[in-house]
Amino acid sequence: MSGKTDPGRFFEDFRLGETLRHATPRTVSAADAALYLALTGTRFAVTSADPFAQALGYAQAPLDDFLAFHIVFGKTVPDVSINAVANLGYAAGIFGAPLYPGDTVTATSEVVGLRENSNRQTGTVYVRSRGQNQRGETIVDYTRWVMVRKRDAAAPAPPASVPTLPEAVPPDALVLPAGLDLAHYDRALAGAAQGWGDYAVGERIDHVDGTTIEEAEHAMATRLYQNTAKVHFNQHSEAKGRFGRRLIYGGHIISLARALSFNGLANAFRIAALNGGRHVAPSFAGDTIYAWSEVRDKAEIAGRHDLGALRLRTVAAKDHACADFPDREGEGYHPAVVLDLDYWVLVPR
Amino acid sequence: MSGKTDPGRFFEDFRLGETLRHATPRTVSAADAALYLALTGTRFAVTSADPFAQALGYAQAPLDDFLAFHIVFGKTVPDVSINAVANLGYAAGIFGAPLYPGDTVTATSEVVGLRENSNRQTGTVYVRSRGQNQRGETIVDYTRWVMVRKRDAAAPAPPASVPTLPEAVPPDALVLPAGLDLAHYDRALAGAAQGWGDYAVGERIDHVDGTTIEEAEHAMATRLYQNTAKVHFNQHSEAKGRFGRRLIYGGHIISLARALSFNGLANAFRIAALNGGRHVAPSFAGDTIYAWSEVRDKAEIAGRHDLGALRLRTVAAKDHACADFPDREGEGYHPAVVLDLDYWVLVPR
Amino acid sequence: MSGKTDPGRFFEDFRLGETLRHATPRTVSAADAALYLALTGTRFAVTSADPFAQALGYAQAPLDDFLAFHIVFGKTVPDVSINAVANLGYAAGIFGAPLYPGDTVTATSEVVGLRENSNRQTGTVYVRSRGQNQRGETIVDYTRWVMVRKRDAAAPAPPASVPTLPEAVPPDALVLPAGLDLAHYDRALAGAAQGWGDYAVGERIDHVDGTTIEEAEHAMATRLYQNTAKVHFNQHSEAKGRFGRRLIYGGHIISLARALSFNGLANAFRIAALNGGRHVAPSFAGDTIYAWSEVRDKAEIAGRHDLGALRLRTVAAKDHACADFPDREGEGYHPAVVLDLDYWVLVPR
Repeated sequence: MSGKTDPGRFFEDFRLGETLRHATPRTVSAADAALYLALTGTRFAVTSADPFAQALGYAQAPLDDFLAFHIVFGKTVPDVSINAVANLGYAAGIFGAPLYPGDTVTATSEVVGLRENSNRQTGTVYVRSRGQNQRGETIVDYTRWVMVRKRDAAAPAPPASVPTLPEAVPPDALVLPAGLDLAHYDRALAGAAQGWGDYAVGERIDHVDGTTIEEAEHAMATRLYQNTAKVHFNQHSEAKGRFGRRLIYGGHIISLARALSFNGLANAFRIAALNGGRHVAPSFAGDTIYAWSEVRDKAEIAGRHDLGALRLRTVAAKDHACADFPDREGEGYHPAVVLDLDYWVLVPR
Repeated sequence: MSGKTDPGRFFEDFRLGETLRHATPRTVSAADAALYLALTGTRFAVTSADPFAQALGYAQAPLDDFLAFHIVFGKTVPDVSINAVANLGYAAGIFGAPLYPGDTVTATSEVVGLRENSNRQTGTVYVRSRGQNQRGETIVDYTRWVMVRKRDAAAPAPPASVPTLPEAVPPDALVLPAGLDLAHYDRALAGAAQGWGDYAVGERIDHVDGTTIEEAEHAMATRLYQNTAKVHFNQHSEAKGRFGRRLIYGGHIISLARALSFNGLANAFRIAALNGGRHVAPSFAGDTIYAWSEVRDKAEIAGRHDLGALRLRTVAAKDHACADFPDREGEGYHPAVVLDLDYWVLVPR
Repeated sequence: MSGKTDPGRFFEDFRLGETLRHATPRTVSAADAALYLALTGTRFAVTSADPFAQALGYAQAPLDDFLAFHIVFGKTVPDVSINAVANLGYAAGIFGAPLYPGDTVTATSEVVGLRENSNRQTGTVYVRSRGQNQRGETIVDYTRWVMVRKRDAAAPAPPASVPTLPEAVPPDALVLPAGLDLAHYDRALAGAAQGWGDYAVGERIDHVDGTTIEEAEHAMATRLYQNTAKVHFNQHSEAKGRFGRRLIYGGHIISLARALSFNGLANAFRIAALNGGRHVAPSFAGDTIYAWSEVRDKAEIAGRHDLGALRLRTVAAKDHACADFPDREGEGYHPAVVLDLDYWVLVPR
């Protein structure tokens, strides 16, 4: 046995306050946008066409915000969650500088919390991960926590330290892309007439359409993000695992739900924040994903009359059309629900 | 139920003479060419290599003509055919300016004909669709007609109006890319010695090779075109439908047939016109597509000694090698036939 | 039957010393890198990020060396191996100028050996294939030999001529990319601390991870290389063939093994030579590929203190984790082995 192979960090390998500098840097291109389109079917105009984006003040069509998130997330996997049992949550995710073709993404994670579980077999690791472009500008900054195995149950654990995380990102913490100006936002080209003022808190929208996932599709998406979590790629080992098959990366479900949400939210042109998210149940190849959204809150953006923010919950379900809005039920969820995502979007007024 | 979701137009929603301006604009790139290659296996030199294309007067390697067609077609789907029962035909398709990486495609459709069916449940909608680049140059201009459901069978229908459509585009209406000059066309690099003069009217060519289609492949291709027709993507709903499974977008069959036609037509470097096309039977994942072509006509191009036009019929069949040229049979077709496409190509002389 | 279709060359069609100029030229782009990533999961920093590559003296991130190899190889297929029974071996493969986005690849093959088999049904053809960029610089230059059918067993065969091929490329024949300087090589960003000095001859590394292959994935990869070998694409004909199903292009297994080797060889940033390779057994969709490597040799590079070369054997196995290093067994191989590849890599010291 050579010591060359990286076994990944176990719970006792993390130190509170340390910063992990992740491999592999990646220069993105229009090809990432095209592959993301081919794999998700996204239709938002800002990420589809340079002139549309430029009319709003973007340098060119940025990559999809969740694509940027997945690329950053993927880099953290080998250092943070290769030995994870479960991805427990996200919070305080703020999207910063748009990610453009030609930009190079690097990522770091700071260990912001550690808490051993009472069984001493595992512990929860909280990391604040930041993706940056080649100018050091933050693309996305978010906290996630994962349950990680201990190498040795008897290993001593540090005192429990759990960070305080906001229930949601406050609207005044949202970052607007530099130069953004929606005076020339063309709703006909974007695909829908509704603006910020047309959405009401509590309103629910069934996104109607459904997308079936193939093994090749989710695996290609997840490899594109250089996410190395074994459960998504190795049928030989997963056949002996809990589900008998490869799990779909939860981020792919987020992307499909976002793409489906176009039908009802075509003008939600920018993800501004990720307040939280639960991967309620696993998805597998062959599943058909549907989604619905609820407007949880609305916020004006200080000094801006051209746009506002909507806080959305988007719920994705599998093999279940969402006209009946499958949701939480008692302590749990409707059995079809696979994702419950809470986020802020920007919408023209 | 929110009114945010677009239900698409029903037959009674179309008005003769109105122009629909379609979402979503799209900036294409070399990634579209690479994905199209990976999904179809196309080998035509003009769309594969910049220096080859530049030697003929192109600014760079253009995207495949049918790729351009599919991107334009895809944009029309949400406005024209989301509630369609059947795609009935194409006519008068003329390819104009080549589509280059970096160009942005937008599309409009004019309603040029409406005719309610006698059962009053459906009607035929004729649209003339035009795809443009960011300079307003026409990329492709074609008419298609589709059978669309009525929302309400009792709704009044306009007087029947059916456009006059040509049996084929006349050769003098074909558009040559600006600056095209085949003096330096390299047949060895292009892959075959035959020129326009080597093809005879009535000649039939078996393209020999076959390509099996996977679900992930046709779905990725169709999403790349932002085509939203539900039948291609949603196994959960299609399982209850007529075929029990997802239908392959007919345009993907066109692309596969064109890619297969390289073996026998390697120098047919440019699609100049789409005279007509019938999707004779549906195709499904697992089908292997073969193709053969017939030279229906030949035309000189006024003032040009370096190239000529061939009018081709390319017939695609599934799970049936085409050495026996499966074709029309009586009122119908050989049971293996899935596509009967009529188009003009340009070929060096 | 038209004479337009290319039947490919049979054994008696090859002439010793002739040079075949292959179609189709191809301009590569960042999209090839993105697709290759999505299909293989490669994580080497040099091919992933422009700034990382530029810090080492590359103009920008080059395409993966094996991607360059596959594109060149693909061009040779229609002229060399369409009528091949088996791909027998590779030797003397030297990687030259890095292949960059924007470069155009063309390829030629010189017939360097011919030997009819005693059954007179087939013969072995040896070709030296060279891929070039648009400046005429060699990207990769290698010899392969294939067993090709005779059209007519009675056809006369030339006198047997078998080239002398090296057991391995000598280290002093390795080509370094122009301007290469590893003074600023960042091992943390690259993903591992080990350098050339940390590897010992005879050392074996289990790359741990496994990747399951889907039909859509290997077919997309192989089409991207414009490789036209029928066995990879046509389920209708392969259903009647020896295996009853499509074979995976052996080059895709090479790429997967190389991508898996990141875990243990993250700093092997450049393939310098291909000494030889055996596709020991076929792979099919659904197989999970694992790999392990052995350090066969180490070489200093004259005048260079920043890097050295490692001669590796990478063995890939299917549905068999490689902790037990499945290898040659007696006359043959452990039944799980599918690939035995011998190559030189460059590694920072």
